[in-house]
Amino acid sequence: MKNVVIIGGGFAGINAAKSLAQSKDLKITLIDRRNYHLFQPLLYQVATAGLSPAEIASPIRAIMNPYPNVDVCLGNVKSIDKKNKTVQTENDEYQYDYLILACGAKHSYFGHPEWEDYAPGLKTLEQATEMRRRILLAYEMAEMEKDPTKQKEQLTFLIVGGGPTGVELAGAIAEISRFTLEKDFRHIDPSNTRIILIEAGKRVLSSFSPKLSKAATRDLERLGVQIWTGTRVTKISENEVQLGGETLKASTILWAAGVAPSSLGKDLNTTLDSVGRVVVQSDLSIENHPEIFVLGDQAAFMTKTGALPGLAPVAIQQGRWAAKNILLDLKSKSRKPFKYIDKGAMATVGRKKAVMQAFGLEMSGFVAWLAWLFVHIYYLVGFKNRFFVFYQWTWSYFTFSKGARLISNPNWKSQANDKNN
Amino acid sequence: MKNVVIIGGGFAGINAAKSLAQSKDLKITLIDRRNYHLFQPLLYQVATAGLSPAEIASPIRAIMNPYPNVDVCLGNVKSIDKKNKTVQTENDEYQYDYLILACGAKHSYFGHPEWEDYAPGLKTLEQATEMRRRILLAYEMAEMEKDPTKQKEQLTFLIVGGGPTGVELAGAIAEISRFTLEKDFRHIDPSNTRIILIEAGKRVLSSFSPKLSKAATRDLERLGVQIWTGTRVTKISENEVQLGGETLKASTILWAAGVAPSSLGKDLNTTLDSVGRVVVQSDLSIENHPEIFVLGDQAAFMTKTGALPGLAPVAIQQGRWAAKNILLDLKSKSRKPFKYIDKGAMATVGRKKAVMQAFGLEMSGFVAWLAWLFVHIYYLVGFKNRFFVFYQWTWSYFTFSKGARLISNPNWKSQANDKNN
Repeated sequence: MKNVVIIGGGFAGINAAKSLAQSKDLKITLIDRRNYHLFQPLLYQVATAGLSPAEIASPIRAIMNPYPNVDVCLGNVKSIDKKNKTVQTENDEYQYDYLILACGAKHSYFGHPEWEDYAPGLKTLEQATEMRRRILLAYEMAEMEKDPTKQKEQLTFLIVGGGPTGVELAGAIAEISRFTLEKDFRHIDPSNTRIILIEAGKRVLSSFSPKLSKAATRDLERLGVQIWTGTRVTKISENEVQLGGETLKASTILWAAGVAPSSLGKDLNTTLDSVGRVVVQSDLSIENHPEIFVLGDQAAFMTKTGALPGLAPVAIQQGRWAAKNILLDLKSKSRKPFKYIDKGAMATVGRKKAVMQAFGLEMSGFVAWLAWLFVHIYYLVGFKNRFFVFYQWTWSYFTFSKGARLISNPNWKSQANDKNN
Repeated sequence: MKNVVIIGGGFAGINAAKSLAQSKDLKITLIDRRNYHLFQPLLYQVATAGLSPAEIASPIRAIMNPYPNVDVCLGNVKSIDKKNKTVQTENDEYQYDYLILACGAKHSYFGHPEWEDYAPGLKTLEQATEMRRRILLAYEMAEMEKDPTKQKEQLTFLIVGGGPTGVELAGAIAEISRFTLEKDFRHIDPSNTRIILIEAGKRVLSSFSPKLSKAATRDLERLGVQIWTGTRVTKISENEVQLGGETLKASTILWAAGVAPSSLGKDLNTTLDSVGRVVVQSDLSIENHPEIFVLGDQAAFMTKTGALPGLAPVAIQQGRWAAKNILLDLKSKSRKPFKYIDKGAMATVGRKKAVMQAFGLEMSGFVAWLAWLFVHIYYLVGFKNRFFVFYQWTWSYFTFSKGARLISNPNWKSQANDKNN
């Protein structure tokens, strides 16, 4: 009986666990500091009040129910001891024969962690509900604001980063302001909202083809989003962003730029790339330690065109492949080098448009959006989630209403909510 | 044109606004410190991971969409000036010709506000998700706990208060531990969970008949709940409850006892009852100020058998009645004294039993549960919510699974979630 410890219950970790569980000679321990698996591609939907948290998260224990040889542990891994082959959390220590690190990534503020207070990122559910809170609150404040200059500031949304996350956020906020909130407010015209998408490079969606970049830009502008390319953020403070010599004032600033891998990778004392990802060999293990695998956003798997991007399909395929290589080890067969099958990439632009490139094809507009819809529903874990999300979206589509529009209060204590506070 | 200011978007406030909106001679302003209307009777379902927050909350603006003469304001009312007829929030002042206070209630810890840290109550969504977090975390901690004494403490849930809230919580937690979590854990037997319901009086559900009290007690015990009546809590500290000479250790303590009205009522400088509720006259206004109404849990409306209880149907009917009396004023007709039509009371006990008394009838068991199901779905605001909740419950019923089992992290910042923190 060999022990496999998997750190991280995201796409890579979950798929590795499910594949490994087939073997009766393995005992698998899956450690995550949260009790649910998160479908990150749909976080922007929670952030823009389109979906509820529970619709994109599945309890890890429920996913692992069918596999009695998988132990699920809620814990925060503090350190890894390669020599003794153990992993330490706050309360426990786990022995391993094989270790899989799949901790994912968090946001990076390019050396300015103090910007996070003013500009939340979008990698976790809590961040998504925090974004949602700020976006909805901005409209509430604008409704009561008498000073036109301040009202304009309330109705200005700045999104930093023109990759898929930034584009999807911008499109969804534009959609809310034009349609969903149309009838909700009496003293503001929500279509006066300024949504500015700031990108340092020459075009948004730089990982897509120039033609699709252009389609997305055009569709965003049609929704009322202003796109500033070739613009770099030099400072973020409360309600203000400095862009070189220019300054913009906005009550809502959202961060969709820089991503950095989990810092746990540093504990491995092995080669990291320039952004901190752990460099892995062709079989997905690290050099000198064939028993340690690093997968997903935390890893740098080099190909002829550079490292594989931090996308869900990459993590899913690597999870299954690492499992396959471990199972080959058990049969004393040789491992296979990982080969990524690029199934393409997609990004939505508002409620009924998207851009998609896959298998040499490029699509934009409504057809691409339909494809996006079905792919994302298909990959959601759990039939019930799929049904709910499909139902919720159909409802939103036909009624223009955005369902989960709750402003949540981070402080739950009742005394804090009393009138005297 | 007369101004009506309504403070509170709960059952009373929402129904008053909807009824008043019929009149073209009124401008209505509805102020709430949250942007949603909460269906409180189902909070315990969120607390026990049966429903998601968005399924029991509706954005107030969406409810008021059809009524252009209703202004919705997000704000926290700080004071009321009866002389000048104004209401002050942090940023604004509102003039009124009529004022309706419907701020509801919060928990009371019988003079021990410091107990709240150790024993959250259940009056808000944030408290419900905090309860859920503690309940789910208890099982996670127990799964990893090697010391049997500590594990028993982890698996002990104490609920203080044997009214409907306490009974419903106890039944739902018992249900989770027996069925939902059966397959999720490898190192604990969730049916070893101790659920103890503590009630100071002689029986649980004292507002129901003794026969129904007994039925509920029997059904709870059949689910594995231990009921301690005639037991008063004397002190709550971390993981410990003192009950006179006895001490119980539990990692999860939930407060379902004492409720106190919002303290805003004190600003009216009028008669309050012994628990702090504002005493109202037969037309629902306060003495000497016919233009000021107080409704729902915040008010004490005296009948031959005492003050009306803090129940949803009371608030709903009072909301509509106060509106009716204001509309009669506008026509220079005389007001009508409020008459409550008692449609009965219900409480669930686990997944398929309930107790119900209405119109002289008493019911318990599965039939009562069906009635409970339909009444609660019917009163939920919004067709979409009704569908979702019905679907979610049907799914849970047939698969024993409890859907919204997320442990949410109150701290959204990524640095706080990094391994070094």
